[in-house]
Amino acid sequence: MTIYKANILFTKQNDYFEVIPNGFVAVRDGIVQGVYSELPADLRYAEVIDYGDRLLIPAMNDLHVHASQYHNQGIAMDMELLPWLENYTFPEEIKYADTNYAKRMYSRFVHDLWRFGTMRTVAFATIHEESTRLLMQLFEKAGMGAFVGKVDMNRNCPAELTEDTNEAMRANEAIIDSYRQANRSHSALVNPIVTPRFIPSCTPDMLRACGDLARKYQLPIQSHLSENKNEIKWVQELEPESKFYGDAYYRYSLFGQTPTIMAHCVYSSPEEIELMSRQKVLVAHCPTSNLNVSSGMAPVRTLLNAGVRVGLGSDISAGHDLSIFRVMVYAIQVSKMHYRQHQESCPFLTLSEAFYLATKSAGSFFGKVGSFEQGYEFDALLIDDSNLNHGDYSLPQRLERFVYLGDDRNIQLRFCRGKQIAEPEIIQ
Amino acid sequence: MTIYKANILFTKQNDYFEVIPNGFVAVRDGIVQGVYSELPADLRYAEVIDYGDRLLIPAMNDLHVHASQYHNQGIAMDMELLPWLENYTFPEEIKYADTNYAKRMYSRFVHDLWRFGTMRTVAFATIHEESTRLLMQLFEKAGMGAFVGKVDMNRNCPAELTEDTNEAMRANEAIIDSYRQANRSHSALVNPIVTPRFIPSCTPDMLRACGDLARKYQLPIQSHLSENKNEIKWVQELEPESKFYGDAYYRYSLFGQTPTIMAHCVYSSPEEIELMSRQKVLVAHCPTSNLNVSSGMAPVRTLLNAGVRVGLGSDISAGHDLSIFRVMVYAIQVSKMHYRQHQESCPFLTLSEAFYLATKSAGSFFGKVGSFEQGYEFDALLIDDSNLNHGDYSLPQRLERFVYLGDDRNIQLRFCRGKQIAEPEIIQ
Repeated sequence: MTIYKANILFTKQNDYFEVIPNGFVAVRDGIVQGVYSELPADLRYAEVIDYGDRLLIPAMNDLHVHASQYHNQGIAMDMELLPWLENYTFPEEIKYADTNYAKRMYSRFVHDLWRFGTMRTVAFATIHEESTRLLMQLFEKAGMGAFVGKVDMNRNCPAELTEDTNEAMRANEAIIDSYRQANRSHSALVNPIVTPRFIPSCTPDMLRACGDLARKYQLPIQSHLSENKNEIKWVQELEPESKFYGDAYYRYSLFGQTPTIMAHCVYSSPEEIELMSRQKVLVAHCPTSNLNVSSGMAPVRTLLNAGVRVGLGSDISAGHDLSIFRVMVYAIQVSKMHYRQHQESCPFLTLSEAFYLATKSAGSFFGKVGSFEQGYEFDALLIDDSNLNHGDYSLPQRLERFVYLGDDRNIQLRFCRGKQIAEPEIIQ
Repeated sequence: MTIYKANILFTKQNDYFEVIPNGFVAVRDGIVQGVYSELPADLRYAEVIDYGDRLLIPAMNDLHVHASQYHNQGIAMDMELLPWLENYTFPEEIKYADTNYAKRMYSRFVHDLWRFGTMRTVAFATIHEESTRLLMQLFEKAGMGAFVGKVDMNRNCPAELTEDTNEAMRANEAIIDSYRQANRSHSALVNPIVTPRFIPSCTPDMLRACGDLARKYQLPIQSHLSENKNEIKWVQELEPESKFYGDAYYRYSLFGQTPTIMAHCVYSSPEEIELMSRQKVLVAHCPTSNLNVSSGMAPVRTLLNAGVRVGLGSDISAGHDLSIFRVMVYAIQVSKMHYRQHQESCPFLTLSEAFYLATKSAGSFFGKVGSFEQGYEFDALLIDDSNLNHGDYSLPQRLERFVYLGDDRNIQLRFCRGKQIAEPEIIQ
């Protein structure tokens, strides 16, 4: 048993922070045993690690990020979507046929996730089996949780990124097989996820194969949904029998038949929202990406009111910022704009709601992750906000200032599943 | 003569970057003498300070910021505008009657402007004469340029912030007089600016007195304009003879009769835009603030097309981020959303345009500031982007990555009017 003492803040529910000044969290075998204002009798003689006046909060989870676009982060932001894909995204992904290149870039990527306090990640790799395995190994070595997807795609993309469906499924099964062997005895931190890029990139036979694969191995799924209006029209042409975009995935068993993340959902129709709610699809809301590539503003309050689960994604490199704290700020701001434009009252996301999306709601994809309630895996960040704390701020205000003004310098320690995570190596 | 060698980038025009790899900038008495790819014959034997592979760019200018709200930065972001003013803004400003409090907070504020590379600032202080002088002294001591406004207000605010018009003007004249004495021989870096808070805070006699003061001493003016729709309605009620909000200022000689900055202009009518253009009013565009307090999205492209000058403002504490680089990113993103919502084509701001707004366009309020053209004051930042430069990026891409991903750690040196600026002291 290890007991940590600090100012504890987390969101059991979305509408307020649990705040325990100078509180205690007891952790055994990586699992939270309880959170206390005063230590109970049976723990009174346990060893306490005292972090003084610092803040202890759940770690961040990133539900949507293209690991293979890390080199392109923060460039070409002045381009429109299509030339951006053709001139930047696809040429970059082609480079990952080279595992040395992949190692250099992926090691930076994992390092920087660590830097910004993201302990669980759902990532797109590329079509390349070996590079995908490399990324998984880097997460394992770091001790950080991840679902990593070998990307499947076979149309509307350069020849170098176009795969034969059978070959793609063979590669997927090879990766899956490695991880099934390793995971028999315990729940691994790193796992594969079925990743059809999105409908315009996959022929019906590839989509069907992906759905079959997910069902056969009971694996989760990630893809993109309703990011912009032209894309939605295109999908309707490609899948004329589908009732709406999400229905096209659903018909291929790629929409909640196993746990599913869909990124964006900016223009989801009421029917699509209803199906997401029913199928328990988890939306990866990516506000920075939606702004940078001019997609629009996702109706997060509408999704939440409809019972849809929502988490946050950095969506590098359409998104520019790997910090989920920054993404949280954008989620609040975008919700303010979206609802200001559409109605008189403005039911924007509050800080506790955005925090809940990034922690407990997103964390649910990884199991019991994202809260300090009993039974949750202890994923945590120790925040030293002394450079921001020059006044008489309350604990929630200190957290708010850290979220709005702070950066990686304020993150002093990082824990994933109870283990303190050391700085991962950058491979040159 | 001092010659600096580095990778030089700046925006002479808004639509592209001047890029001089391993270029030279020659500076004498704080003024740029020229920028060169190769040193001309007469400078061949001058001493060169070589900054290697770093980037040398113009420093940032912040056209709208409430220095006295620095303590409130990044808190109360979940509140609506009116309770936010009543519960946070006004109580905070009342504290500046205490010069010790003012000294502590203002010294942090000036320090952090330095930190983020803002070398010229147009700031609101409070109604308090002594605290306002303190802020001016802190800028002078730091060697950083500023227009600092003693705020004038006498209605719709707490008693502690309500002034008698004559007393307010006496305080203004006392400050102005000090600075006129000092400035006879040269152009001072720090100067007063006439600052009626905004029309709802000032009775007609106070507005008239402010206009008279500005004309008498040929002083610049700053205030707020058309930030939200309720405010516009309110102004119409308070000033029923005005044709629109800006016209109300105009009638009091507060709209371009002397150089004028108006913050926000989110909902300016075509008539107002026309008058701003004619009167050469400089708009302080504050995208973070406009998002955080749900004002809306300012139509920056529309303003620019109408010939209105635009610069950027952090607007602390409605804005949450003091870094004008971050504000630049938001300006681009907001322009993408605004025009995406209003039309099919999306004439968003490019990086060079946002950079131009923050440097040469905003800098014009201070004289020849914000460019490296001959005759401009040498306000510059030396950027060490080695932590971001892990690939084969072009110089504009390196700048783009610094703007989108970098922070104060990348700013290695700061110059204002040719002088290297040391870290200002924080007074405890």
